[in-house]
Amino acid sequence: MSLIIPRKEHLSFGGKVVYYSHQSRTCNCQMNFSVYLPPIAVIKPVPVLYYLSGLTCSEENFTVKAGAQLLAAKYGIMLVTPDTSPRQTGIAGEDETWDLGSGAGFYVDATIVPWQEYYQMYSYIVTELPEIIARNFSIEREKQSIFGHSMGGHGALVCALRNPDLYRSVSVFAPICAPMQCALGEKVFAAYLGEDRENWRQYDATELAKTATFKTPILIDQGTADEFYQQQHLLPELFVEACDQANIAVNLRFQEGYDHSYFAIATFIADHFEHHAKYLLG
Amino acid sequence: MSLIIPRKEHLSFGGKVVYYSHQSRTCNCQMNFSVYLPPIAVIKPVPVLYYLSGLTCSEENFTVKAGAQLLAAKYGIMLVTPDTSPRQTGIAGEDETWDLGSGAGFYVDATIVPWQEYYQMYSYIVTELPEIIARNFSIEREKQSIFGHSMGGHGALVCALRNPDLYRSVSVFAPICAPMQCALGEKVFAAYLGEDRENWRQYDATELAKTATFKTPILIDQGTADEFYQQQHLLPELFVEACDQANIAVNLRFQEGYDHSYFAIATFIADHFEHHAKYLLG
Repeated sequence: MSLIIPRKEHLSFGGKVVYYSHQSRTCNCQMNFSVYLPPIAVIKPVPVLYYLSGLTCSEENFTVKAGAQLLAAKYGIMLVTPDTSPRQTGIAGEDETWDLGSGAGFYVDATIVPWQEYYQMYSYIVTELPEIIARNFSIEREKQSIFGHSMGGHGALVCALRNPDLYRSVSVFAPICAPMQCALGEKVFAAYLGEDRENWRQYDATELAKTATFKTPILIDQGTADEFYQQQHLLPELFVEACDQANIAVNLRFQEGYDHSYFAIATFIADHFEHHAKYLLG
Repeated sequence: MSLIIPRKEHLSFGGKVVYYSHQSRTCNCQMNFSVYLPPIAVIKPVPVLYYLSGLTCSEENFTVKAGAQLLAAKYGIMLVTPDTSPRQTGIAGEDETWDLGSGAGFYVDATIVPWQEYYQMYSYIVTELPEIIARNFSIEREKQSIFGHSMGGHGALVCALRNPDLYRSVSVFAPICAPMQCALGEKVFAAYLGEDRENWRQYDATELAKTATFKTPILIDQGTADEFYQQQHLLPELFVEACDQANIAVNLRFQEGYDHSYFAIATFIADHFEHHAKYLLG
């Protein structure tokens, strides 16, 4: 079933923002996402750029805070911004903590009870959502890229590194780069994936980079005043080291004084669009 | 007392967003505002552009949603975004409705009990806040302009028309233009100002325009899909008619299909900065 229900629609920079809900066969519940259709989308099929958000976000934060529509309109790129988890599944405790359950899907396919029945975010992002977008919008299906922030930066890197033929380019803001090596990642992976750390490697960008092939350079922006970076939850240096060993091109830019907020994303997002436009257009 | 307490600070486009609180002598309570200091503010005094927000907003909505920092950085203009009302005053019912009390100061000096003790937003915006900004930041005090949205569009027009020597330019998004002639305005003015409609005229942009002198053209953007416009709360045509009679230059632009949201503001804000830059710079 690919029925999508528009909930809200707003004109924006000559195109339109639309918030949708739909019944997900992968996540076994109602899921939400937003899109931005650039003005040129009424004339011709457009490439698609997926944005994966961070912990506690819904599809709305990026949509209202990042200044992305200005750039998507300029380049003629469709934006798709999924929610960060299933919601209202009825799982006991799903809303109790900020770093597990609602708003914290971590873009993995959970294997552990009770999460495994709904929390299939990896397959949702990589398989179901692109199918839904292709069925409902006029897009150039072979032209898709992905970016994200924090937990969503982790998600974007994992999706891209595991599927180099599906994504033309990937870029990230303050990504969680080595979840197996930070307290936040260890807690969540244990809950969603169980205690066997071998099963975690498929969702750890640094582990994946060691054996991955990705054809286009990876762009990373990391603020130096970012508390999650300072608390060693992000660890971009480990990811760069792994990329260097695997000959994956990566451009890690430290941005002096910038924090973990959408103010940092908005400041540097133009560079990310320029990066993706290079591989999505023409 | 002009002590201002920074609550949060974020780098943004090379400058910085700071949220402040301070004890207001005018409103007799703690008030909140945000500023954006463009990069050039560390080198030289800068002009100031005030933004007045709409109903239900705090100082945060515009700060995170409008994409204003990109433009303020580009032009070298400081942004000041006050909250829309006193809060937590202890007035019974202050938080009960969306269109009166908290989040709905309407930029008037209330004369009616219980509001009059705290709700002095007109004097706060025109007198106290500019003094605080001048004392705490390196600005070109004689170069200030004002813009706003909806209730804040009403506020910006009223502040500018009553003080043509204080503001070099004014522009508005979907402003309430004739509050004495719409249900929303009538309810609020009766509560804050009493039943004598003669006392309302000093806060009605259309009434003020009839006898005002304002030296620079007024820019208005109004979306045609705006429900508040469609429900006759905004009435820009009446304001334009009054301006025409008083020989005040006004440019009312109807934006086809745009609604009352920040998506519309973000789409057209670059034109508003260009407008203000013409009068604030050089």
